[in-house]
Amino acid sequence: MSKPYVVGIDIGGTNTVFGIVDARGTVIASSSIKTGAHSKFEDYLEDLHKELTRLIVANDAVDKIHGIGVGAPNANYFTGMIEECVNLPWPTPLAFADLVSEKFGIPVAITNDANAAAIGEMTYGAARGLKDFIMITLGTGVGSGIVINGQLVYGHDGFAGELGHVIMKRNNGRVCGCGRTGCLEAYCSATGVARTAREFLEIRTDDSLLRNLPIEDITSKDVYDAATAGDKLAKDIFEYTGKILGEAFADFINFSSPEAIILFGGLTKSGDLLLNPIREAMAKNTLPVFKGKTRLLLSELKESDAAVLGASALGWEAKDDTPQA
Amino acid sequence: MSKPYVVGIDIGGTNTVFGIVDARGTVIASSSIKTGAHSKFEDYLEDLHKELTRLIVANDAVDKIHGIGVGAPNANYFTGMIEECVNLPWPTPLAFADLVSEKFGIPVAITNDANAAAIGEMTYGAARGLKDFIMITLGTGVGSGIVINGQLVYGHDGFAGELGHVIMKRNNGRVCGCGRTGCLEAYCSATGVARTAREFLEIRTDDSLLRNLPIEDITSKDVYDAATAGDKLAKDIFEYTGKILGEAFADFINFSSPEAIILFGGLTKSGDLLLNPIREAMAKNTLPVFKGKTRLLLSELKESDAAVLGASALGWEAKDDTPQA
Repeated sequence: MSKPYVVGIDIGGTNTVFGIVDARGTVIASSSIKTGAHSKFEDYLEDLHKELTRLIVANDAVDKIHGIGVGAPNANYFTGMIEECVNLPWPTPLAFADLVSEKFGIPVAITNDANAAAIGEMTYGAARGLKDFIMITLGTGVGSGIVINGQLVYGHDGFAGELGHVIMKRNNGRVCGCGRTGCLEAYCSATGVARTAREFLEIRTDDSLLRNLPIEDITSKDVYDAATAGDKLAKDIFEYTGKILGEAFADFINFSSPEAIILFGGLTKSGDLLLNPIREAMAKNTLPVFKGKTRLLLSELKESDAAVLGASALGWEAKDDTPQA
Repeated sequence: MSKPYVVGIDIGGTNTVFGIVDARGTVIASSSIKTGAHSKFEDYLEDLHKELTRLIVANDAVDKIHGIGVGAPNANYFTGMIEECVNLPWPTPLAFADLVSEKFGIPVAITNDANAAAIGEMTYGAARGLKDFIMITLGTGVGSGIVINGQLVYGHDGFAGELGHVIMKRNNGRVCGCGRTGCLEAYCSATGVARTAREFLEIRTDDSLLRNLPIEDITSKDVYDAATAGDKLAKDIFEYTGKILGEAFADFINFSSPEAIILFGGLTKSGDLLLNPIREAMAKNTLPVFKGKTRLLLSELKESDAAVLGASALGWEAKDDTPQA
């Protein structure tokens, strides 16, 4: 008998959120533990096992879990390892998939957060029925998951799809978290928007509601609030951000000619403030042969569920022979 | 009994070259007709049929052709159509694959020249055994064929892989043949190198062998000759070209994390003059997680055979139900 549920686990630096999901994408039940509270991985795994087992038992799902999908930073689908984790407290490389699979006796597949989001969108969300699309996550960083011909692109090493790190400003670009300069992420993440705000406030001389805030503490949310209140400088920050994103998307289209580019993450709450300049820049910069062919869509997954849903979708693919180190 | 041969047809604006190829990539026999001499497609097809049939008969290959593969500008694998052809004399869209298949009674598959080159390299050349690589053709233009997980990337519309048209100079970039500005192709094709030569000669004041030539007639070959004779300005032109290519390749790696980038075309004859600055720029610009993982290779197909071989490799995939309009 085929098993009706999967488990999704999303590992962040602060919290590890997990849930039981059915084939239609309903989160039956979810819970979380503190990631950072466990300096030893053994303790973390013990705690995760206890809490998740409690959840499985409470929801009558014992022996009904097809697989466990995990979204984690720097996770490698091919090896099942978390290869580096600056935001996690444990030594790496860490054979996460193997260790969780042994603990639970359930097949485990793992990938990074943006790839999990793409698979989630394809399984339950805006990308249902699409075979060629690019998922872009606009959060603290800019992540991406690329689907070509119905398959997620992992590349030869398992790490493909780092579109947040294409260079958008070749000279004089901002320093990025990756150590290079001019990356898309340095401009178009939530952090990038806040950096743009500080830059605009320093360079420009016009009035702005943002001048009432301590400049070092300004967030993308502040910029959004100011823009919706009609603030010209704040609106220009979204224009600037959207233009860079649209220029980048036009380049991405040259690569895989996707049917859609799907946006997910906090910044997308800005709506047309951000989407209109993206659309304009895409229209202006797309190669004629691709013009008007690629739709710009928003994720259809509820944000509070999305991370667990995305990870869980990978659980349907998990097999006992899922490639693991 | 499986049929031992395929036919490759490469359609250029001047000549249409074709040949019979065996499973090991030996060109058994080849010939050509003038593309431009046939203003009516019917006459062209008649002539192609006559010449190719003669070749097939003369080489005892009647009923031994598995399929015909065609490389042509703006050809769409999904529809079998040549959708636009500024360099060809016939009205478009043209149902090329269907018409040729009907005429010969043999299955036909078609794609653009750079995709054919990638398939050729995977079947017979430097990419044998590689599942993830990017083919870059450096000729009059800059073309690309992308292979991910062993499959050529066609995108949702059949036109994916236009990496010659990613934007490398966002402001103040050169006009490209596509009507936009700053494209890779405007800098790193043979034509782009000649344009760089003219730009350098106008802006710089140092001596150069290139100053002995009429500036409007300088070709990439002239730049190569001057550079190998030790000319500093000519060598700097290759440095400039290679740097832009290496920066572009670093971005491409973010997309699909290929095992190799394979170069093909006239410009690659420049050897280390071009390859060294590419390698330097890749080393400098590649995201840390990908550093040192992607090899830079040269095509292993003999240039005179490569176009026919590339097209022929697609012939192995041709089926009676190959998607055609």
